[in-house]
Amino acid sequence: MRLAVSMGDPCGIGPEIIVRAAASGKLGEAIVVGDAAVLARAAAALNLPPPPHVWAPPGLPEGLVELPLGQVHARAGAAAAACVRGAVALVQQGAAGALVTAPLHKAALAAAGEPYPGHTELLQAMTQPPAPVRMMLANDELRVVLATIHVSLRRAIALLDAPLVLETLRITHAALRQWGIAAPRIAVAGLNPHAGEDGLFGDEEIHHIAPAVAQARAEGMDASGPYPPDTIFMRARRGAFDVVVAMTHDHGLIPVKYLGVADGVNVTLGLPWVRTSPDHGTAFDIAGRGLADASSLQNAAALARRLASGQGRSG
Amino acid sequence: MRLAVSMGDPCGIGPEIIVRAAASGKLGEAIVVGDAAVLARAAAALNLPPPPHVWAPPGLPEGLVELPLGQVHARAGAAAAACVRGAVALVQQGAAGALVTAPLHKAALAAAGEPYPGHTELLQAMTQPPAPVRMMLANDELRVVLATIHVSLRRAIALLDAPLVLETLRITHAALRQWGIAAPRIAVAGLNPHAGEDGLFGDEEIHHIAPAVAQARAEGMDASGPYPPDTIFMRARRGAFDVVVAMTHDHGLIPVKYLGVADGVNVTLGLPWVRTSPDHGTAFDIAGRGLADASSLQNAAALARRLASGQGRSG
Repeated sequence: MRLAVSMGDPCGIGPEIIVRAAASGKLGEAIVVGDAAVLARAAAALNLPPPPHVWAPPGLPEGLVELPLGQVHARAGAAAAACVRGAVALVQQGAAGALVTAPLHKAALAAAGEPYPGHTELLQAMTQPPAPVRMMLANDELRVVLATIHVSLRRAIALLDAPLVLETLRITHAALRQWGIAAPRIAVAGLNPHAGEDGLFGDEEIHHIAPAVAQARAEGMDASGPYPPDTIFMRARRGAFDVVVAMTHDHGLIPVKYLGVADGVNVTLGLPWVRTSPDHGTAFDIAGRGLADASSLQNAAALARRLASGQGRSG
Repeated sequence: MRLAVSMGDPCGIGPEIIVRAAASGKLGEAIVVGDAAVLARAAAALNLPPPPHVWAPPGLPEGLVELPLGQVHARAGAAAAACVRGAVALVQQGAAGALVTAPLHKAALAAAGEPYPGHTELLQAMTQPPAPVRMMLANDELRVVLATIHVSLRRAIALLDAPLVLETLRITHAALRQWGIAAPRIAVAGLNPHAGEDGLFGDEEIHHIAPAVAQARAEGMDASGPYPPDTIFMRARRGAFDVVVAMTHDHGLIPVKYLGVADGVNVTLGLPWVRTSPDHGTAFDIAGRGLADASSLQNAAALARRLASGQGRSG
């Protein structure tokens, strides 16, 4: 199964981690959707061979190799978007079985006039109708799906209702089943300390989360909770559950990242194809200096392959 | 240095974990403040010797050994409170150098007519004037101090202001200095995803947390932040900081508990004496069944000894 790997922002660490991962064999026969000159420059700097299969997608700007590394540039943002669109097209056409995206820079994307704040929204817009999606972060020990992401904590609490939680559970359940887990054991974390302690420390569990869990169970899902946030991730890590649904960005990401960020992989759930990405950004501060660690990209590629072939349980 | 160890609720696992810890030598010459008959029953059930030094404090009710295990009882709550008060008196009189408290049951305490919801408030009321205190959770890898604790997440956000954060920093700094860390490196976690991303995802960092950090630095503390919550605990675990101040109960406790709860120790900062406790409750469901794990109590005793002797850096 071939992967489509989008190059990401040409001024970030995307090209060099792709070169490293390709040279180590961890990308298999992947089609790298990007600019051959940019990738050749990265390969030369690392004294490694360039990736064997590079495809320049429609709309890729010229002269990318002239852009200074580590800076926001509209042309780089346009290139990153073109690479994502090209990589999705490969998957949609069946030339690739899953999508792995190297990091893009949100400010460069905006400078290019793209209306999408990031990968997730760009990918969502390529489905018809736009699919409801959720962000999962996974490593060897823990999978977490987030009910809310890039909003203030105050706003996340305001957004939280039973339909949002239920949609998160449905997306999570469907994704894990596609990956080969027949009856995913889904733990639902609460929002408040001690999951609200019977309403003493907040009532979102009573009014929103518990009803969503009950409905999910009525629909046949093995969902349970809400559990106290401070111990449920530890329990899932020890194997009690296949996945934890967290109400907030940091309840979910603190435990996934606690043992180190190099191993984490970001997975977008709800899309009609498998899409993974490394759990880091463009790292402009070290771009081109040969310091970037390709582990997370390599893990993202390995996980994409496993998920697309229905072997999610092993991951 | 002798410890004063309060027995906790006689119907919970306190007596048996004390017996286990004492028999293993982990309590040293500790004075166990409690009921000799209750401790003897626990020792007999475990086929272990009772603790060598037991002291019945003033106000200890009689007939405790007749109470059924695993149930809320007013007399048991009164006993737990009397043991805490007696243990504090030993420390205040210099007969013991630090206080370790076994778990009490909040409902039993209330049933006994005590106006304090838990240990922290009971202890706080024994200082004149009542000291502002904060809860720390510590294990071998990470120390976390909480700016807010047992309130809803919504209320925690409403409570958060610069004076609250600054008071937390002052208490944390003073405690770590007392423990022998000359210039404690204090990381301050943000409240919002990405620590607010320059105000895009919430402004508590700008309006409350950053000004408190600036003031703490002006007072000579090595405080920094606010940092994104999802990576700062991982960085502290790797040694970049001596302690992390977390804005919410679960931001702080999720990482401390992620690798297991048996090793965690609860420390009350801001009191005039060292007080630690195991990071679990009375566990009524297993009380008297010989299943309770004494690890957290043993760690609490070891940490109390280290802190009271100014050797906090090794912990």
